[in-house]
Amino acid sequence: MARVNENFLKLKAGYLFPEIARRVGAFTEEEPKKAEKLIRCGIGDVTEPLPKAARTAMKEAVDELGDRASFRGYGPEQGYAFLRKAIAENSYQGLGIDAGEIFISDGSKCDTGNILDIFGDGLKIAITDPVYPVYVDTNVMAGNTGEADESGRYKGLIYLPCTAENDFTPSLPEERADLVYLCYPNNPTGTVASKEQLRRWVDYARENDTVILYDAAYEAYIRDPELPRSIYEVEGAKDCAIEFRSFSKNGGFTGTRCAFVVIPKGLTGSTASGERVSLHELWSRRHSTKFNGVSYPVQRGAEALFSVAGKTQIKKLVEHYMGNAALLRASCDGAGLTVYGGQHSPYVWVKCPDGMGSWEMFDQMLQDAQVVVTPGAGFGAAGEGYFRISAFNSRENVEEVCRRIAEVFGGK
Amino acid sequence: MARVNENFLKLKAGYLFPEIARRVGAFTEEEPKKAEKLIRCGIGDVTEPLPKAARTAMKEAVDELGDRASFRGYGPEQGYAFLRKAIAENSYQGLGIDAGEIFISDGSKCDTGNILDIFGDGLKIAITDPVYPVYVDTNVMAGNTGEADESGRYKGLIYLPCTAENDFTPSLPEERADLVYLCYPNNPTGTVASKEQLRRWVDYARENDTVILYDAAYEAYIRDPELPRSIYEVEGAKDCAIEFRSFSKNGGFTGTRCAFVVIPKGLTGSTASGERVSLHELWSRRHSTKFNGVSYPVQRGAEALFSVAGKTQIKKLVEHYMGNAALLRASCDGAGLTVYGGQHSPYVWVKCPDGMGSWEMFDQMLQDAQVVVTPGAGFGAAGEGYFRISAFNSRENVEEVCRRIAEVFGGK
Repeated sequence: MARVNENFLKLKAGYLFPEIARRVGAFTEEEPKKAEKLIRCGIGDVTEPLPKAARTAMKEAVDELGDRASFRGYGPEQGYAFLRKAIAENSYQGLGIDAGEIFISDGSKCDTGNILDIFGDGLKIAITDPVYPVYVDTNVMAGNTGEADESGRYKGLIYLPCTAENDFTPSLPEERADLVYLCYPNNPTGTVASKEQLRRWVDYARENDTVILYDAAYEAYIRDPELPRSIYEVEGAKDCAIEFRSFSKNGGFTGTRCAFVVIPKGLTGSTASGERVSLHELWSRRHSTKFNGVSYPVQRGAEALFSVAGKTQIKKLVEHYMGNAALLRASCDGAGLTVYGGQHSPYVWVKCPDGMGSWEMFDQMLQDAQVVVTPGAGFGAAGEGYFRISAFNSRENVEEVCRRIAEVFGGK
Repeated sequence: MARVNENFLKLKAGYLFPEIARRVGAFTEEEPKKAEKLIRCGIGDVTEPLPKAARTAMKEAVDELGDRASFRGYGPEQGYAFLRKAIAENSYQGLGIDAGEIFISDGSKCDTGNILDIFGDGLKIAITDPVYPVYVDTNVMAGNTGEADESGRYKGLIYLPCTAENDFTPSLPEERADLVYLCYPNNPTGTVASKEQLRRWVDYARENDTVILYDAAYEAYIRDPELPRSIYEVEGAKDCAIEFRSFSKNGGFTGTRCAFVVIPKGLTGSTASGERVSLHELWSRRHSTKFNGVSYPVQRGAEALFSVAGKTQIKKLVEHYMGNAALLRASCDGAGLTVYGGQHSPYVWVKCPDGMGSWEMFDQMLQDAQVVVTPGAGFGAAGEGYFRISAFNSRENVEEVCRRIAEVFGGK
């Protein structure tokens, strides 16, 4: 019999977003009139048009494919040199990252999941809690965990709680970890890490032969120039860290699909017998064998985001969403809610009032305000008692959400 | 220490296409004048322009993304309903495949590699020999094999030789296999399977609880209406087969990237304790967790291939490449070479004359004719003594290749 990967069966059935969809669906059926007023601030998906620079470049690239002389078939699996170079020069200027260390992909979700292919079995994995569910689920699927307990925590994972009590700053693991997932600006809490905090992680990783998987998908939202946008701003990070970035949240590419991962050439893992092996080379082999490169017009679109026009258009997009975040913060604050994040991130993380549970809060926001938020518990046990509001929306919708928050919770 | 996946270290360093590139590079350095005349018939990459129907649809889709009202962010991971429906209605008409059984992806290479995620460890894998190297390499990476021997054969794999002696028809495995990879029209031999041959495989699979991984990437090249284009034309295949298809070779999408996999809802694998588990559901979970859907404009481009204009344009492309194949067949035949394939496939598979080895033949074609072919041994031990010529080229280049074959080997 063709045996299945039984690790999949450990996955909790009630995955966050399907459960949200279920509750919204039930509400719509019960209260069709109220449901007409629904505003979705749940999933972190952009809403504003794709920047013109990207669109123009994509259409030109499609035209190129229409002419035999400029037609392009298979591109390099690692991505076209024009895009790798643009990234190295613009996103890693002065950080010593070579274009050849950048691998273009169709998404950070794919990259953060697929990266486990190059690592061995039974590794000790540390994750912050709450956390982007993909880190957890892909480790479950890869067999790096045991079963889940009632709170949804999987045996074998090292959970690092991030709550108001520790200022959303995870402690270093007490035991040594092989891999640590870090995400800054953080999804879901919207908090950021200082250079000093990242330095502690890099020191830990170098002492323990740990690889840091650093997800910087939201770096465009950092406004304080003192805050690190890349883990490679910390000395020594090139020996211990892989960085993931995406064009989804800066260039509005969630439906267009382009991202990249940086694996420095000097970064190594180990065989059982202690031989060092280049992770860059393993990923290059993985990428060549199981991937065929990103669509050519899409790579041209991503390249155009680095043009002068592209940069201006990204800046405007980010300002729009950050303006939303400021309004949401002020509105929650005015309603007497305690609010975190949203200052260098498109996510506002709010404490549920009066000891309410996060799904209870979800239901109240749905019933009383017709606003869909994301319950913190959906991101992990330590997210219980919080909820996330996404600033990815039109200004009009956000202003309406603010009015409804004031109505339901009182406030200015 | 962060342990690496040591299975990667079993992979043979001299992967086929890099080795070809190395030899071509050396030749170019030694014989720069001759090298100016090089014609590449090696890698199976299309050369003709992307069909107009696809280009128009892609540009319209890019424009849609430029307007807030029609902007699309994250699409369904499994693909947009419009494309799944177009495929079900056009490619599986009358075969009882539902749109919901079709998963859109960015390439068959990705799909045939990633599919192993949903299967357990240590499965018995059967592959034909010669074969598309991705099937083998991804199984090596997943730990389903031992080390390679000198001929490049990995311990633990079941190799099914396909040579002129057995009319390129693999025998059923003597031992039972959990997974069998089949590819028709075949890459690299260009041969096809009759419905009767596929029926024997389906019977074998049903008797042995085997899953057939059926790669139909070249189905557009089948010209005999009696030959099956899909494994689902065989009764019972929905209980035992997964089918992979792509827009790369019919619509010229090698650089545009779109493919799909069909996993019937009734298809199951087994747990260790014998419980049946839906492979469709496992893949859906895999796709949702490690993939974020194909670029929206690309999906619109693929949909347009099913329009009346799109179908006409595909037909013209296929006729062009098949005209090339016919010329190549005739030229090899005229030169006294024994030739296979190329009648329902863009690949011509040629026996090396006088007991020559396939790399020796590769070198001769390079030196004497300045034509890059693919040595059969690169596809597996049973490919030794053969070489592949790809019909993916301009007519002009193919006519020149034919002239040179006549010059080097004699002939009409």
